[in-house]
Amino acid sequence: MKSLQQLTRQKALSGLAMPRILPSQSVAARRLWQRNFSATASAAQLAALDASKLTITKTQAPKELTPNKDLVFGKTFTDHMLSIEWTAADGWHTPQIVPYQNLSLDPSTCVFHYAFECFEGMKAYKDKTGGTRLFRPNKNMERLNKSSARIALPTFDGEVLTKLIGEFVKLDDRFIPDARGYSLYLRPTMIGTQKTLGVGPPGSALLFVIASPVGPYYPTGFKAISLEATDYAVRAWPGGVGDKKLGANYAPCILPQLEAASRGFQQNLWLFGEEEYVTEVGTMNLFLAIKNKETGQKELITAPLDGTILEGVTRDSVLSLARERLEPKGWAISERKIRMADVAQAAEEGRLIEVFGAGTAAIVSPVRSISYRGKLVDCGLKADEEAGEIALQMKNWIESIQYGDEAHPWSVVV
Amino acid sequence: MKSLQQLTRQKALSGLAMPRILPSQSVAARRLWQRNFSATASAAQLAALDASKLTITKTQAPKELTPNKDLVFGKTFTDHMLSIEWTAADGWHTPQIVPYQNLSLDPSTCVFHYAFECFEGMKAYKDKTGGTRLFRPNKNMERLNKSSARIALPTFDGEVLTKLIGEFVKLDDRFIPDARGYSLYLRPTMIGTQKTLGVGPPGSALLFVIASPVGPYYPTGFKAISLEATDYAVRAWPGGVGDKKLGANYAPCILPQLEAASRGFQQNLWLFGEEEYVTEVGTMNLFLAIKNKETGQKELITAPLDGTILEGVTRDSVLSLARERLEPKGWAISERKIRMADVAQAAEEGRLIEVFGAGTAAIVSPVRSISYRGKLVDCGLKADEEAGEIALQMKNWIESIQYGDEAHPWSVVV
Repeated sequence: MKSLQQLTRQKALSGLAMPRILPSQSVAARRLWQRNFSATASAAQLAALDASKLTITKTQAPKELTPNKDLVFGKTFTDHMLSIEWTAADGWHTPQIVPYQNLSLDPSTCVFHYAFECFEGMKAYKDKTGGTRLFRPNKNMERLNKSSARIALPTFDGEVLTKLIGEFVKLDDRFIPDARGYSLYLRPTMIGTQKTLGVGPPGSALLFVIASPVGPYYPTGFKAISLEATDYAVRAWPGGVGDKKLGANYAPCILPQLEAASRGFQQNLWLFGEEEYVTEVGTMNLFLAIKNKETGQKELITAPLDGTILEGVTRDSVLSLARERLEPKGWAISERKIRMADVAQAAEEGRLIEVFGAGTAAIVSPVRSISYRGKLVDCGLKADEEAGEIALQMKNWIESIQYGDEAHPWSVVV
Repeated sequence: MKSLQQLTRQKALSGLAMPRILPSQSVAARRLWQRNFSATASAAQLAALDASKLTITKTQAPKELTPNKDLVFGKTFTDHMLSIEWTAADGWHTPQIVPYQNLSLDPSTCVFHYAFECFEGMKAYKDKTGGTRLFRPNKNMERLNKSSARIALPTFDGEVLTKLIGEFVKLDDRFIPDARGYSLYLRPTMIGTQKTLGVGPPGSALLFVIASPVGPYYPTGFKAISLEATDYAVRAWPGGVGDKKLGANYAPCILPQLEAASRGFQQNLWLFGEEEYVTEVGTMNLFLAIKNKETGQKELITAPLDGTILEGVTRDSVLSLARERLEPKGWAISERKIRMADVAQAAEEGRLIEVFGAGTAAIVSPVRSISYRGKLVDCGLKADEEAGEIALQMKNWIESIQYGDEAHPWSVVV
């Protein structure tokens, strides 16, 4: 029992349903691994991620740039990739920027069998002075570490990886379109690379970052989407891993998404439990602006971080800005559970002001209607409107920070 | 709405919490994919998996056999692998047996990001006449199809894949150790191979089968294990995907497993819900033999297929044999929920006869004790016993069929 107390793992794991995982968990997980599965290495010998060791191998075949109008999300990639190996025996190996290239992996590699994989989505933006900026990279690093630790993959110093990503972005700078709404989508990914079918903590891993130039989500202005509330399948549950950005959370979402699409809905909305709590949309968090029936108080509501929703960086940004800029104007800002039936009732009574999704891809995505129990819940937009007031404001506020028009600590020049 | 009714997808998906998925779902998923994401192909043009097209490229560098005593599960592989590509536009491509080799995949391939991956575990056995046998391969094919369809990967004719696996096994026949308890572990795996970060149904996939010679799980006879009941994390949920053999279900299980190991337990036992129902063990289903308090009736209990446990082939085999051979001797055989507290009470009252896990690796794995709420639940074995009577019988009955000593429709000569 002594080692358990040392590691405080019980405590860390008890918190899995909560969004918080101790930073020490990563070290604990690594030590646990060593104790159980490796007798050779001690934590002291493990190399930390070290940006000063970065090596760069430039491509001999620079790609042609894709014209802005032809950009498709996640389809074309820059000249290079950032690649860092990790082994349980040695820790982090030399960070390398190399030409964008295939991964060559043994078919028994654990990423193919047991979904040892997690990732982040973040963007680099060109500001008006030609500088390149990241948006709240510390949030992505924090979340990637949490995701990684939860599936026994290694953790790392987030500031060091941000620095390395900065070097990568600077090298492939020419791929960042210099136009509002455009950016370079960055995909940090961690995969387990151990070659064995035994189910256990991977003894080796690969952290890589690839980058894809992307255009505005709404090239011709907002276009409100319609959602289908899903009650026949469950995305996440308390004590599960739905709050981590694991590959494991994505493949099972496709069928309900196709199902919704087959009936003309752009995304599905995940409900949870008998109460049918509103949790999140396909690949976004959800915000609802509702007027209180008794008091008339306007409230911006999003689901709480109870383990069943992803801890979105955009969600957090919307909440912060709402508290800073909407609360003084009389809005209540709430992270709380809300039943889909209550949303439907608010709509019927004309109290549903607006609804929007929040995510890295679109920033905000206005919602026109939600299909629920055979009826369409009207989300408050007028017929000729494609976005509500708050969604519009949020997009402007956040973009203004992302593109460096407004000086803000969230925007980090690389 | 017409196409929806045609596809009966709503019905199929409504059944996700239930273990049943319509075979037609696969075709439906493919059509849905085409309708939504591809305008070019119609179902009629899609090629089915065709064993008659098999091509074989033999290795130029045959491997040395690993001595039986040095075999480690899933560490060494045979000379070849079976590999079949699928594309949404064309269906199944030519099946190929090729030398065992690395997979070369673009870093944006969807298997690395969204866990488009599912697999099976099955074994080939040498019988006393030198023939090679598979055990209930139809069950594995059925389950792989269900897993694959659930994550929008393609399905296939199970008999055709069984035939192809038979050809592969025959070619690498020399790797099957000719000794009781030894076998060739087969790992059919399906991965999504589309190169895009867009979250959607993969437009291409790879089905591959690799094979690893394995020794007996208990080389020196049974060794009872001890479990730790896990109440701080949840493996699966009704309406989720815990009943499918998806990679997604495995990575999140490692930390609780390490946690149990750190306290000296070989596996963790997943409880579910406030009632703390017994579901399954790390990588096995669980069986409990309990004497009824009032009637004295002996009952062999395993969790029902309610979506929270894997539909184990060994589980099914144990249930069938129990109904055939134990029921006539006065046993009741039940697929039902049982609370961990009731198991603990039965143990305290001397009514817990024996407990064992059931899975492909060990067939049965006797359990000595379960740590629950700070106490050790004694599972009925005497101090000098490593297996209970039923576990022993089951292992003998099943092995006898697997190795062809007993003629039985479950054993299929390749």
